[in-house]
Amino acid sequence: MSTELLISLDGMGGDNAPRSVVRGAALVRKETPNVKFIIYGDKAALKPLVSRQPALRGGVEIRHTDQMVTNDDRPSKALRAGRRSSMRLAIDAVRDGEAQAVVSAGNTGALMGMAMASLRTLPGILRPAITTTMPTLRRPVCMLDLGANVECSAIHLVQFALLGEAFARCVLELEDPGVALLNIGVEETKGRQEVRDAARILRGLDIPFDFKGFIEGDEIAKGLIDVIVTDGYTGNIVLKTIEGSALFLRALLTDALSSSLWAKFGYLFAAAAIRAMRRRVDPRPHNGAVLLGLNGIVVKSHGGADEVGFSYAIRAALRLIQNDFISKIRDTIKTVDISCQGEALE
Amino acid sequence: MSTELLISLDGMGGDNAPRSVVRGAALVRKETPNVKFIIYGDKAALKPLVSRQPALRGGVEIRHTDQMVTNDDRPSKALRAGRRSSMRLAIDAVRDGEAQAVVSAGNTGALMGMAMASLRTLPGILRPAITTTMPTLRRPVCMLDLGANVECSAIHLVQFALLGEAFARCVLELEDPGVALLNIGVEETKGRQEVRDAARILRGLDIPFDFKGFIEGDEIAKGLIDVIVTDGYTGNIVLKTIEGSALFLRALLTDALSSSLWAKFGYLFAAAAIRAMRRRVDPRPHNGAVLLGLNGIVVKSHGGADEVGFSYAIRAALRLIQNDFISKIRDTIKTVDISCQGEALE
Repeated sequence: MSTELLISLDGMGGDNAPRSVVRGAALVRKETPNVKFIIYGDKAALKPLVSRQPALRGGVEIRHTDQMVTNDDRPSKALRAGRRSSMRLAIDAVRDGEAQAVVSAGNTGALMGMAMASLRTLPGILRPAITTTMPTLRRPVCMLDLGANVECSAIHLVQFALLGEAFARCVLELEDPGVALLNIGVEETKGRQEVRDAARILRGLDIPFDFKGFIEGDEIAKGLIDVIVTDGYTGNIVLKTIEGSALFLRALLTDALSSSLWAKFGYLFAAAAIRAMRRRVDPRPHNGAVLLGLNGIVVKSHGGADEVGFSYAIRAALRLIQNDFISKIRDTIKTVDISCQGEALE
Repeated sequence: MSTELLISLDGMGGDNAPRSVVRGAALVRKETPNVKFIIYGDKAALKPLVSRQPALRGGVEIRHTDQMVTNDDRPSKALRAGRRSSMRLAIDAVRDGEAQAVVSAGNTGALMGMAMASLRTLPGILRPAITTTMPTLRRPVCMLDLGANVECSAIHLVQFALLGEAFARCVLELEDPGVALLNIGVEETKGRQEVRDAARILRGLDIPFDFKGFIEGDEIAKGLIDVIVTDGYTGNIVLKTIEGSALFLRALLTDALSSSLWAKFGYLFAAAAIRAMRRRVDPRPHNGAVLLGLNGIVVKSHGGADEVGFSYAIRAALRLIQNDFISKIRDTIKTVDISCQGEALE
């Protein structure tokens, strides 16, 4: 634990930046003093925020730039015009070996585009995917892709399965994670052609790989599968649907517990238990979506994250560094024909 | 209300058939005595069940067949071999004008295939879609397609939007329902090509139609959109994800309220309020998915529905009959170029 860890931060990305970025970094350094940060952004805004955090003393270098990517910027524009933006410079620090990981709460599309341009994908990997973990009844699961790839071929899905499995071993620390493709039935004949093709290829892999076939939407929250693979269109909609359902049921519960005097009285006694339940589904500890498949660790924080949320995104990056994720994933894809060139697709 | 209503029932479809079918019919006749049923299936099994229900006296005709579609039957096999099955005969009763609607809790794929073969689609409609209503914070919404069409073109999605809008006017009794396409962002440039094409066509329709553009997954439960349109792959996964999330949060709440003596004591007081909340998200009143786009009313009950659930599926069929749904939907599609032949797709 005495090795120095170095993370670059996009100081200007996200709705609550730069405050949430600086305070989030301080929260992490309180428990992990051997981490240091390079923060890119407007020095005039960052400097007073940093100096107010004793935990950051001697642990932060601010690198000034007056350019930033906004949420309205189209990824293509950000990619062309944003070479001096706080986001791009923070990514380039990883490419140049100055930092071991980058964390940004900015525009997802721009982050993905810039990370691909700067870091490139791992050998054989066609497209990176976004993944995150979610709470379930059993243990956290990871799902991918969550929106980087609107349309996916069978090969893309197979590669996501391999990337996700390596992620689950490394970050969720599971020895033999179960992997399944999201589908509308569990029978082999169900669903889209690319999903069925991907299943056939995964069944035929000659590496240790616990492929469980198909999983339906109602099984996600049971937590019996560790890695759920789908295209970015479906994954993004499913993730947001889960968020919306949680907010809906939370609102109903709040309504119910203030609907009568009896209910309010009951809530006085059950309050601690209900707070504990809310902690179990608190999305903040799961903040930090990882861009998988790149030559470097890139973590995307939710754009609306507060300092606590942002600190969890930094922690996700730390876990990936400490587990030597990039080397492990390189080893995984070396042992398998990740281009699936031996496969004849129907 | 004195007009006679006649509904044909697949007496053998579903996990709890024939009991749930017969008892569900009795529940409906208790409140709507002018409804009569033709029940298809094994007379030896059905007759004693019917005779035990005083509410069904004089209101049921049993028509014997010893064939039935099982859940394992592939739709193609059911279609070929199941011409004398309880499901097919119940559908044919609608085609022959003997019944005004059919309700089945059997195999969805077989029901869809048989209904298309027997009833045919409405003029100009390429594919039927499955829809159902769901509770939200505001008022029920309907979503389609929920699994009949794994891949959809822009024209399919446009037709689903028109069918869904007519359904919302007729069944949810909304004057001017808002319609949106499910997508991964609200900007015009986001999402799959067919979704963007469908949006462009819907924006250009020259009929009164409240098209709201795109909706993301986290907005579904807010209830601000009345009709949510998507392909059957995504719709099926989203619907099941919502079901799974609800069960997950319900399990967490049950855990929380029995986690300590204080919590149990609190629950004593809040029990009525929490029961009321559970009623708000009880799926049973929303049982009864409708196959839209056919020349006749076909309602699919959840396969696992109990008698209460099945009775709601019958009630959904009743509302469609009483609102003269098929005529209304014919009128809607007459006024618009539903084949979208004037459209050049990108």
